[in-house]
Amino acid sequence: MQPAIGVFDSGIGGLTVLRAIRHLFPAARLVYLGDTARVPYGTKSPTTVLRYAHQAATFLLGRKVDVLVVACNTASAVALDELASELPIPVVGVIEPGAQAAVQASVTRRIGVIGTEGTIQSGAYERSIRLLAPDAAVSTVACPLFVPITEAGWADHQVAHLSAAEYLAPLQAAGIDTLVLGCTHYPLLQSTLAKCLGPKVGLVDSALATARTLHPYVGVVSGGGGSAEFFVTDAPQRFCRIGGGFLGMELGNVQQVVLEN
Amino acid sequence: MQPAIGVFDSGIGGLTVLRAIRHLFPAARLVYLGDTARVPYGTKSPTTVLRYAHQAATFLLGRKVDVLVVACNTASAVALDELASELPIPVVGVIEPGAQAAVQASVTRRIGVIGTEGTIQSGAYERSIRLLAPDAAVSTVACPLFVPITEAGWADHQVAHLSAAEYLAPLQAAGIDTLVLGCTHYPLLQSTLAKCLGPKVGLVDSALATARTLHPYVGVVSGGGGSAEFFVTDAPQRFCRIGGGFLGMELGNVQQVVLEN
Repeated sequence: MQPAIGVFDSGIGGLTVLRAIRHLFPAARLVYLGDTARVPYGTKSPTTVLRYAHQAATFLLGRKVDVLVVACNTASAVALDELASELPIPVVGVIEPGAQAAVQASVTRRIGVIGTEGTIQSGAYERSIRLLAPDAAVSTVACPLFVPITEAGWADHQVAHLSAAEYLAPLQAAGIDTLVLGCTHYPLLQSTLAKCLGPKVGLVDSALATARTLHPYVGVVSGGGGSAEFFVTDAPQRFCRIGGGFLGMELGNVQQVVLEN
Repeated sequence: MQPAIGVFDSGIGGLTVLRAIRHLFPAARLVYLGDTARVPYGTKSPTTVLRYAHQAATFLLGRKVDVLVVACNTASAVALDELASELPIPVVGVIEPGAQAAVQASVTRRIGVIGTEGTIQSGAYERSIRLLAPDAAVSTVACPLFVPITEAGWADHQVAHLSAAEYLAPLQAAGIDTLVLGCTHYPLLQSTLAKCLGPKVGLVDSALATARTLHPYVGVVSGGGGSAEFFVTDAPQRFCRIGGGFLGMELGNVQQVVLEN
């Protein structure tokens, strides 16, 4: 039987994680839930985010998934431990895999992290990196323009290049050799960021790092034949329109659902 | 006695309206409420926005205001009529004053409107302008980058100029002679937008237009001596830090409050 993987995000960004999972596990059955009615989570209190994460997990368990991926940085920072201890299936977040990949990739131990204001303020990546490499010098920058830039389809626009130059200047000054893309929207900016930083700085895509951690739970399933279902809590048309660019293909059928309040 | 004016917004943008009110009525007592815990309203359902607007109005009535300004485009579009019919004090929104000022200013009747995705999709400005001038040709563009650009303090950055050129191109092609700034954040971009559009296109600042409609309720009070109190539902530090640029002066004391849920 095909393994089934549930992927949950506050909105549309988690589709880059789904894309990476699909790439590594083409035979898997994937179920995506975007809580588009209540996005963004970054400005909400931990109690509220925890409640939303529980509702999402309950919904995905109802769709018979074998493993749950919390493809949302805020929910990963706030709710992962509690979900992992309470749910009957394995739970994977995006922060630890990204931190681990960065520590493995960095030679100088000067690591940069970019993310939304909420993620950067939470200090979650910093803590996770320091746990693995206490001597690491971690520099962080919040990049609030990157989400609307990617959602507008402007990832290669001059606006994106100029914003990247402005945001990344302090990280270049800090001499980082590795940059963690600490937001699920940012893989779309990979080539723009790489151009800005030059070949000496490696980029860590949290989406890909997260997908790789699924190997123990999903195993190796040869061949394709996988499937993907999409659920959102609001505005399926917008999700369809913008999501194609995030997933790298058409989304097909997107259903709107109500989560218990 | 000083007249008291309550100003309500989903977040920080309404401070540009407060600034305009303060400029016109320097003797007034002003009470500002920003619902920063639940911003943005644009992605929420009308039922939810209506509930939030009622809670905000109840709070401001408790602070003994004589008139209520709904300095939020989404709440103006959704909740103004109901608030106006139910509250014991006059209620003023931001959309009708902006539409009225645009119709007065435009000679060619080709009017452009820019705003957030939520405001543009609601069609509220378009309806309001067509009600006053049925022959008007209204062109609208959503500018999702402008809010994070102003909140980052980048209103005069090259990123702002390039984004403006991209967003405004279809409005220039449509030959508009008047542009409505249909978002309370946009007055900060006034000089950037003016440079992009050139001297032949007039800009209508909804904030100023809204403040002017208060004359009948507030009257003429000579001299200064006014005051301003600020309340938010979350993150007063961020509100203070960013709000100074919106208000054109230090905010002083900002208090966090809980609205009934």
